[in-house]
Amino acid sequence: MTRLPTDPAANLSALIRCVSVTPAEGGALTALQAMLEPMGFSVERPVFRQEGTPDVENMLAVRGTRGPHLAFNGHTDVVPPGDEGDWRHPPFSAAVEDGEMFGRGAVDMKGGIACFVAALARLVEKGALEEGRVSLLITGDEEGVAINGTVKLLAHAAERGHRFDACLVGEPTNPDALGDIIKIGRRGSLSGLVTITGAQGHVAYPHRARNPMRVLPAVMEALQGVPLDEGTADFQPSNLEWTSVDTGNRAANVIAARVSAAFNVRFNDVWTGETLRAEIERRLAASVAQADGFTVGVEWKEPVADAFLTAEGPLTRALAGAVEEETGRRPELSTSGGTSDARFVKDFCPVVEFGLVGRTMHMANERVALSDLESLTRVYETFIARWFAANA
Amino acid sequence: MTRLPTDPAANLSALIRCVSVTPAEGGALTALQAMLEPMGFSVERPVFRQEGTPDVENMLAVRGTRGPHLAFNGHTDVVPPGDEGDWRHPPFSAAVEDGEMFGRGAVDMKGGIACFVAALARLVEKGALEEGRVSLLITGDEEGVAINGTVKLLAHAAERGHRFDACLVGEPTNPDALGDIIKIGRRGSLSGLVTITGAQGHVAYPHRARNPMRVLPAVMEALQGVPLDEGTADFQPSNLEWTSVDTGNRAANVIAARVSAAFNVRFNDVWTGETLRAEIERRLAASVAQADGFTVGVEWKEPVADAFLTAEGPLTRALAGAVEEETGRRPELSTSGGTSDARFVKDFCPVVEFGLVGRTMHMANERVALSDLESLTRVYETFIARWFAANA
Ligand SMILES: [Zn+2]
Ligand SMILES: [Zn+2]
Repeated sequence: MTRLPTDPAANLSALIRCVSVTPAEGGALTALQAMLEPMGFSVERPVFRQEGTPDVENMLAVRGTRGPHLAFNGHTDVVPPGDEGDWRHPPFSAAVEDGEMFGRGAVDMKGGIACFVAALARLVEKGALEEGRVSLLITGDEEGVAINGTVKLLAHAAERGHRFDACLVGEPTNPDALGDIIKIGRRGSLSGLVTITGAQGHVAYPHRARNPMRVLPAVMEALQGVPLDEGTADFQPSNLEWTSVDTGNRAANVIAARVSAAFNVRFNDVWTGETLRAEIERRLAASVAQADGFTVGVEWKEPVADAFLTAEGPLTRALAGAVEEETGRRPELSTSGGTSDARFVKDFCPVVEFGLVGRTMHMANERVALSDLESLTRVYETFIARWFAANA
Repeated sequence: MTRLPTDPAANLSALIRCVSVTPAEGGALTALQAMLEPMGFSVERPVFRQEGTPDVENMLAVRGTRGPHLAFNGHTDVVPPGDEGDWRHPPFSAAVEDGEMFGRGAVDMKGGIACFVAALARLVEKGALEEGRVSLLITGDEEGVAINGTVKLLAHAAERGHRFDACLVGEPTNPDALGDIIKIGRRGSLSGLVTITGAQGHVAYPHRARNPMRVLPAVMEALQGVPLDEGTADFQPSNLEWTSVDTGNRAANVIAARVSAAFNVRFNDVWTGETLRAEIERRLAASVAQADGFTVGVEWKEPVADAFLTAEGPLTRALAGAVEEETGRRPELSTSGGTSDARFVKDFCPVVEFGLVGRTMHMANERVALSDLESLTRVYETFIARWFAANA
C-alpha cells in the first residue's frame, strides 16, 4: 500500500513549491490529486470560464457513496509574493527556519488544505472513515475575482447529484494563536458607485456651471454621517467605507460635470442587500444636492453577498469541541472580518470556518509554525470524527 | 504703393484660413507679417522653448523710433474646432452667411487682430501715425500652457530696449454687444492640490486603517464653507472651485491611503498670491482631519497670477471715450471673468482690454458680425488717435 499523506508539513511543502498565483494552477492541484487518489478519492478537475475573466481550474474530490456527507472548501491559489527581496527565504521554497515553514500560501491557505488532507489520511489509515462521504471543493479563484471558483464548483457538484450536509472552510481564522476564533458567519458586502452630475463650465464663471464637487461633502455625509445600525448580538455594526472618489479632470481652469465616489458596505443581518440598497438610495435622494439642480445616482456592483449566520448545532459543537480538546482553548464564535467563499457555500449547507493563524497572510515572509500544522491536523481529525459520530 | 490692409473682414478671412490650433503657427503669423511690413513695421518672429512644452513661434512687430509707445497684445492661436459636423461652415473657411463670418478664432481673437491692423492701416494712410511708436506682441501660446508666449515675448522686447507706455489687449471682452465691457483688471488665479494621507487597509477591517475619504468632506468644507471675502468696489468676491478630486483606487475591498483634491481660486485684490496661500494653509491646518491622525498637505501649482487693476487715467479714458463715440454706449469698466495675457503685460505697463463679442468663442460656429468688425476697427482707430493725442 502507498504511504498516505499523514504529515501536514510534507503536504504543505509540496503545495508551496507550486507557483499557483491566481489564476495559475501551477501544479498545486496535481500535487493535491496525488495525495488524494491513494486514499480512494475520485478526482475531477473542471475548468470554469466566463467572458472577460481568466479560465480557472478547480477540483472536486469525492470519497464514499453513502452516509452523511461532509465537505471541505479551500483554495490553492495565492496572492503574488510582492518584492522577493523582502522575503527571508524565497516565497515558493517552503524553507524551514526555527520551527517555521516560509512560503506564500503557508497560512492562506495551502496550510489548511495540507492539514485537512493529513487528518483524512490518518483517519483512513485507522479505517475510521468508512461510514460516510467526504468531498473536497478546491478552487484556484479565491484570491482573484472569485467568479470561476467555488460558486461554479458548488453548482457543478450539485449537477452531479452531490448534496452536502455540512461544510468546513479552512481559511486562517485565528488572529494570534490557534484556537482564537471559529467563524460561524460573515457580514454581507455591497459595493456601489455614487455619481453626482452638475454642469461643466469655466472656473472663472462658476455661476454658469454647477460644480458637482461643491455638494460632494454633503452627499458623502448623507451616507457616512449617521450609522447604519448599532450591530447585533452576533454581528458588528454595519460599516460603509469610501474606496475611491474620482473626477479625472486635468484642466485646472475647468469645472467638471461629474464626480463619482465608490464605496463598500460590510453589513450585518439587520439588512439584506435589497433593504440596504433601498436605504442608501433613500439617503442619497434626501441629500441636499438634489435640491440644487444636481442629479445624484448610484450604480450597484456585483457581486452582492448577504450576511449569514450558521445556527448553533451539531456542526458548530463538533468544531468548537475539537478545538477545545486539542488546543485547550475555548474559541470565540465570531462573524467579524472579511468575506470568504463561505458566502457561496451557505446557500447549500451549514458552513463553519477554522484554520491557521492569519497574522502573516498576504505579507512578505508568510509562514506557519510546524507545531501549528500538527495541532490543526489533530483539530481537523477530531472534528471529522465528532461530526460523523453526531450524524451517524 | 502697396494697398494697405484697411479692410478688417479681408484681414480676418486671411487669418481664419490658417489652421493655427495651439501650438501650430499654421501660416497665421506669415499672413500677419504680410499685412504689417507694407505699413513700415519691423517684424521679428522668435521661437520660444521650454522643456516639457511645445516650441511656439511668436511675433514682435515695431513701427517708429521715438515718442510715446503703444503696444497691442493678442494671439493667433485658436482652440481646436471640435467635431466639424457641428459647424454650419467648415471651421477654417471664413465663410460669410447673413452678414456673419464663420470660423475658429473669428472672435477669439483673430478678429481683434484683424481690426487693430485695419485701424493702423487707416491711420498710416492718413499720415496720422508719424509721431509715436506702435508695437504688436502676438503669440501662438495663449490658448495653450501660456509658457512660450506673451510672458517670454515681453521679456524679449525688454531685452531689445523696447519700453511700452500702455498696452491694449484685443480679447473679446463683450458678453452681448460691442460696447458692453472694457476690462481694466483681472482677478488673480491660484491653483493647488490638497492631499489627505491616512493609512491603507482592508474595507473589512477599517479600525486597522485610516480612510482619508472619511475626512474629505470636512477638509473640503474647511476651504469652501466660509467665503474668502465679500468682494470690493472694483472686484467680485474671491471664489474657490474644486476642479478634481481623485483617489484612483480600483480595488473595491481596499481602503486607499490618500485622496487628492485640486482647486482653483479666482481672487481679488484683497489678497496677494502669498496671503491667500497662507489663509488656505491656515484653514487646512485647522481642519478636523489633523486631529484624527491624518496629514493634510497642499502643493501649490504654477503659474500664480495676482489680481491687478489699471487705475483710471489717460489710457482708460482714451479707450472708454472711443468706445462711447463709436458705439454710442458707455462701457462698464470691469474686472470680472477669466484671466488673459494681460496678467503678464501689467508688470510692464498699464493695460486695458477691449475686443469683439465673445458669445461664440470656443464653441462650434464661432462667428462675428461684419458690422462689428467695422465698428471695432473704428473704436481702435479712435482710441489710438486719442491716446497719442493725450500723450503728445
Ligand atoms: Zn484565503
Ligand atoms: Zn483669447
